Amino acid sequence: MTITLAIEGSGFTSRTRDDVQYFDHSLFLIDEHGIIQSVLEPDDERYQAERAQAQERGIYHAIAEGSYLLPGFIDLHVHAPQWAQDGTGLDEPLEVWLGKYTFPTEAKFADEAFAHKVYEDLVSRMLSTGTTTASYYATVDRKGSLVLAQEAVRLGQRALVGKVVMDDPEANPEYYRDASAQAAIEETERFIEEVAELSQSSVQGVYPVITPRFIPSCTDEALRGLGELAAHYHDVAYIQTHCSESDWEHGYAYERYGKSDTHMLHEFGLLTDRSILAHSVYLSEEDMEVYAQTGAVAVHCPLSNAFFAGSVAPIRRYLDAGMHVAIGSDISGGYNPDLYGAIRQAVTSSRMLETGVNRDLAAGERGVANSALTLNNAFYVATAGGGESLGLPIGRLEAGYAWDAQVVDTKFPSARLPIFEDNEPTSDIFQKIVNLAVPENIRTVWVQGREVVSK
Amino acid sequence: MTITLAIEGSGFTSRTRDDVQYFDHSLFLIDEHGIIQSVLEPDDERYQAERAQAQERGIYHAIAEGSYLLPGFIDLHVHAPQWAQDGTGLDEPLEVWLGKYTFPTEAKFADEAFAHKVYEDLVSRMLSTGTTTASYYATVDRKGSLVLAQEAVRLGQRALVGKVVMDDPEANPEYYRDASAQAAIEETERFIEEVAELSQSSVQGVYPVITPRFIPSCTDEALRGLGELAAHYHDVAYIQTHCSESDWEHGYAYERYGKSDTHMLHEFGLLTDRSILAHSVYLSEEDMEVYAQTGAVAVHCPLSNAFFAGSVAPIRRYLDAGMHVAIGSDISGGYNPDLYGAIRQAVTSSRMLETGVNRDLAAGERGVANSALTLNNAFYVATAGGGESLGLPIGRLEAGYAWDAQVVDTKFPSARLPIFEDNEPTSDIFQKIVNLAVPENIRTVWVQGREVVSK
Repeated sequence: MTITLAIEGSGFTSRTRDDVQYFDHSLFLIDEHGIIQSVLEPDDERYQAERAQAQERGIYHAIAEGSYLLPGFIDLHVHAPQWAQDGTGLDEPLEVWLGKYTFPTEAKFADEAFAHKVYEDLVSRMLSTGTTTASYYATVDRKGSLVLAQEAVRLGQRALVGKVVMDDPEANPEYYRDASAQAAIEETERFIEEVAELSQSSVQGVYPVITPRFIPSCTDEALRGLGELAAHYHDVAYIQTHCSESDWEHGYAYERYGKSDTHMLHEFGLLTDRSILAHSVYLSEEDMEVYAQTGAVAVHCPLSNAFFAGSVAPIRRYLDAGMHVAIGSDISGGYNPDLYGAIRQAVTSSRMLETGVNRDLAAGERGVANSALTLNNAFYVATAGGGESLGLPIGRLEAGYAWDAQVVDTKFPSARLPIFEDNEPTSDIFQKIVNLAVPENIRTVWVQGREVVSK
Repeated sequence: MTITLAIEGSGFTSRTRDDVQYFDHSLFLIDEHGIIQSVLEPDDERYQAERAQAQERGIYHAIAEGSYLLPGFIDLHVHAPQWAQDGTGLDEPLEVWLGKYTFPTEAKFADEAFAHKVYEDLVSRMLSTGTTTASYYATVDRKGSLVLAQEAVRLGQRALVGKVVMDDPEANPEYYRDASAQAAIEETERFIEEVAELSQSSVQGVYPVITPRFIPSCTDEALRGLGELAAHYHDVAYIQTHCSESDWEHGYAYERYGKSDTHMLHEFGLLTDRSILAHSVYLSEEDMEVYAQTGAVAVHCPLSNAFFAGSVAPIRRYLDAGMHVAIGSDISGGYNPDLYGAIRQAVTSSRMLETGVNRDLAAGERGVANSALTLNNAFYVATAGGGESLGLPIGRLEAGYAWDAQVVDTKFPSARLPIFEDNEPTSDIFQKIVNLAVPENIRTVWVQGREVVSK
């Protein structure tokens, strides 16, 4: 291994789900594959020598005082084409939002030039807010979806990309759906092959994702076929879908199958250690066990849940049950592309679940005890927890992990954080960063050792 | 009247609580007092002539295409000294948060140099995010509090500033409280006189505010004395306090007086058309009537309520009852100094009140119907509604109102809003701005005709 980058800086990384570690002027030695080979503390005997050598070789980079390193964020639920309508239509009920805004928007991405324009903008924006890995829904159109994978590779984001499957003629508009179950399966297989091919030329990784939109928009034939693809391509492809997002969706599977959607996804072969299950709000104890045993990940999307899910996912309980939990912006059901926002809303929503919202009930009766997430919990879910759920060495600034990192400048003039004393505890600085940083504070971002943002 | 500034631009202003008006290349003619004298549409017969004349006189300013004018925001609940601890300690329960963080922080502001440093930073930051008017709690210390008023005048923000009263030795720490009820009243009166004097030199206005922290921290003697000051200085000073923030606070007044805090504030002469009542979460129907009849304003602080209030204030119901409603960041119980964030959280919290949060209850039983606020409602509350509640001509871009305005650049390179088509409906652009703008998008801010931010 050759060290090709040496970075000295202070910052924060999750140690456990409850604890965040502060590191002080650590020296990170990163190899040519973008992997952290060693992390040296100033009192380590190799520290001075390695630093001197890196300086000599011109690969040394010091993070300025007042700037802090954090791991890059991992956003595991993004409807990329919906970036074009982001922030709009949220006063409408879900069915209006889908029919009037979302499906017409997504249908436009068969136009590859339009797809290129929107996807380039979205990937750049997400990188510039510190999101180094994302799991994307693209659209039904395979070629347009490939544009998203290409843009992520080109711009340097680690991406999981799926061509959306929605084949049921009863459930989807004529102008926007797969031609048939068979066509949906064939197009998905072709997409898997194309993205796998593309991944050869990507340092940071791009992964195909088998993507039934959700059970209600797919026929059993398509779901079964996708399950077979999932088994066949287990080592190549991930799986993503929505699971138990709302009362309606959760009830839907019981109507159609007499069983939960968790159960049915499992039966179709779509619930494995490669499964990324957006929302997962209404899981029963039995569903939770299936998640914990298979290793599937529940992706918490707190902002969009406030608009469309009808309740708050009990994330604290999911963590206690040993489930993998990650976080998602859910653009554009959630309009905020910035995972700082998702972390903050996860904490805020969990507090509202804990205390309840309806003042007409007695204080002890309106909420659900032991629901609050700490800021550390939410930070973990957006970094280390997301990485673990994917089985990838990302989300931590530790030896053996990819160098996916962001630099937050707390002194940036127009967005200076309120740090007025020299002896401010580092735990307070961490909280100020996570609660208060705006995109302007993020000055440098690397993915797999490559500098992808430099402001 | 002399026109000293002519601005041509497109943008948005609240027409009613439900409707937002789009204006297209309107010409705003602003006089030497910073008041909008006329708003001319392009088809108005005077439009071309006035524009030409303004250009000749060098007072014409055109807002670029892709940039939009909005009224400045009005933040009616800010604990200014808490900016120094903003974002920290929120995982702690309220009593720990107050004792370990808040009171020690506030006590530091007897040091005028420290006060100057923090207040300058806060006022600048708020202006740069579009907040042109703010109602501030300062601290118990009169001189330190005056520093805040001076900084607001100097930096050009319209400010309402109060020296905090908390005199009860049983309820407040030894190191941070008024020496006695008498001293609290005298210091408040002196502060009123000093700020009234300072206001002479302010174009945009600075107003003294009688500020009992809240009933539980004050003696009856102090509350009575402050009520007398409120009557005496009715035309000079506002009144602010917390009212019915939490179950505990709401219950407290019943324990002490057998009556609600709304009722008691009224009885002490502290609930008038000049009263700014933070939180107001637990108001009874009778309390709501007192608000509506007196003209007092309920200041909704949605983020801090998620942490400390224990439920969501039913704002839709308050508006329907004819109450004045405004919005507040509540720094640092709410950590976000940016009112875009407060607007968004008000909508999000209202949706969570409407649908409920606890999935273990049936869908129809977990929420409170008709609670959802639209984005337009929340924007109104943060602009026109706030202005009306203060009885000041602010919060609208209309003739007769102060020129308090912000320019949002939707094309700013590192924070471009996702507008990809030339024919995007203006209502969608409005929603994208309010839901997605970050501080970088705000390029120019005026207060009372004076340009106070120019990036």
